[in-house]
Amino acid sequence: MGLTVVGSIAFDRVKSPFGERERMLGGAATYFSLAASFFDTVSVVGPVGDDFGEEHLDVLRTRGTNVDDIERVPGGHTFFWHGEYGWDLNQCHTKATELGVFADFEPKLSTGSRGCDVLFLANIQPSLQRAVRETCTTARFVALDSMNYWIESARDELVDVIGMVDCVLLNDAELRQLTGRPNLVTAARDVQLLGPRVVIAKQGEYGAAMITPDSFFSLPAFPLESVVDPTGAGDTFAGGFLGYVARHVEQGLTDDVLRQAMAYGTALASFNVEEFGTDRVARLTSGEIRDRVDGLTRIVAFEHDPVELVSRP
Amino acid sequence: MGLTVVGSIAFDRVKSPFGERERMLGGAATYFSLAASFFDTVSVVGPVGDDFGEEHLDVLRTRGTNVDDIERVPGGHTFFWHGEYGWDLNQCHTKATELGVFADFEPKLSTGSRGCDVLFLANIQPSLQRAVRETCTTARFVALDSMNYWIESARDELVDVIGMVDCVLLNDAELRQLTGRPNLVTAARDVQLLGPRVVIAKQGEYGAAMITPDSFFSLPAFPLESVVDPTGAGDTFAGGFLGYVARHVEQGLTDDVLRQAMAYGTALASFNVEEFGTDRVARLTSGEIRDRVDGLTRIVAFEHDPVELVSRP
Repeated sequence: MGLTVVGSIAFDRVKSPFGERERMLGGAATYFSLAASFFDTVSVVGPVGDDFGEEHLDVLRTRGTNVDDIERVPGGHTFFWHGEYGWDLNQCHTKATELGVFADFEPKLSTGSRGCDVLFLANIQPSLQRAVRETCTTARFVALDSMNYWIESARDELVDVIGMVDCVLLNDAELRQLTGRPNLVTAARDVQLLGPRVVIAKQGEYGAAMITPDSFFSLPAFPLESVVDPTGAGDTFAGGFLGYVARHVEQGLTDDVLRQAMAYGTALASFNVEEFGTDRVARLTSGEIRDRVDGLTRIVAFEHDPVELVSRP
Repeated sequence: MGLTVVGSIAFDRVKSPFGERERMLGGAATYFSLAASFFDTVSVVGPVGDDFGEEHLDVLRTRGTNVDDIERVPGGHTFFWHGEYGWDLNQCHTKATELGVFADFEPKLSTGSRGCDVLFLANIQPSLQRAVRETCTTARFVALDSMNYWIESARDELVDVIGMVDCVLLNDAELRQLTGRPNLVTAARDVQLLGPRVVIAKQGEYGAAMITPDSFFSLPAFPLESVVDPTGAGDTFAGGFLGYVARHVEQGLTDDVLRQAMAYGTALASFNVEEFGTDRVARLTSGEIRDRVDGLTRIVAFEHDPVELVSRP
């Protein structure tokens, strides 16, 4: 039951045109679980160091997230990431990455984590993603994220584990790099040939597109007048998307359900970028989320009232 | 009645990864009128040289477009543009521009052209746009396109004419450059403060967004497996958009009508990029257009079936 996520738990240093933060709670698993925990119970699998305090675990526990599989490595340092954004918030410049306890990470899943219905393999080494995938034998929907680094350095392992999941979430550039196809539609079809039924192209400020065997769906990002820190938007999207999926996996994941899951992911991600780090999502209410999904339905709504066209010759 | 467009009529040399064409009929006014003529009568205002043949005029005349205000300049050369696209079709590299008869262009509008309901000021020098705007006193909806060159070199004149139109169509980068605002929503609000009620942000492969005083609307590009030549997509979009507007300008341009106009613009633009130059739109049928607008409604459709969310603490 519930969701399991394996991925980074981190301290982030982030600078954007709107300010700077020195040591925020971050990491893919953190962002994911804060979003997904609105929908179902989440188990987090990942390593932290001695420098990771009880107050940080409490943020993760906010909505009942299970932190028992967060492995505290004695003498180790929590993964650290330092990034900067310019005025174009779509472009992030990584200034430093210190793997710390992540360097020797070997995921260990308790019986509870292993028994998840929905599994998210956040962006980590593909062979570790594969090991976790094989451990979670009862998972009914498995999604995977990755990045350019693994596409370059561990392509075969990545293609291997992509063949074992239901859904791939990558940004446009990564989809192109993985498939060698400049066209999004053909790139997505190529990924589907590797195995996954669902391909989600994350498009930053332009939103996201979902390609399934039956349809193409596109949803813009929720329009915001102020975007402060895009860090974690993709993992927050994944948390909202897979959280909604977890709540519907028993009834069956039709295209209609997956489209609504996209809307919840989009809504959650839009809150995430309004403030630094996890600040906004940590204090988010369920009413705010529903209102924003309603807002999305209005942003894309139009009816086709056909007009008679001139068709000479 | 009908639409008038003032803008370039050109010969284009275009190279993309899918081929090369030496001397195609092109230009903003050409692309615009081929699309808009599906909806209403279009008058084209623009200069050509001696090298512009009757066969080229015939392409423009296809659906009844009035070419009487196309001025043939004795001894002159038609505007020539040479551009190349790489695999990223969003990026165009201009290799040459020869203004020819466009260098000394002074728009002259016949009584018919002046009496238009809907006017499109394609991308030309802002002071010429202004002169034409002032000539068309009975126009009920006026839209304007521009480019980075005018934002840099004729900013005051551009701001001036923007204050005299109902709708501005620019791409994301141009909106940012014009307003100095990296955020699309605030950039659009700034443009609205100059006068126009409707701001359309063209976003290439990601589609387009429309900001009106009452709402934000976003529509993806129609997903295509093959894009051959993006030249003219923006002007074709404008033709579909304003053509639909022209057919509804008497009943009133509600947000609902403008959203459908966006869909028609998007559909027309998607056909335009499937082949080189004007080839595809020139032989397009009204049924194909309607089908693609229907396709767009399916691509963005989702219903919000609210799920109960965990809202601790």
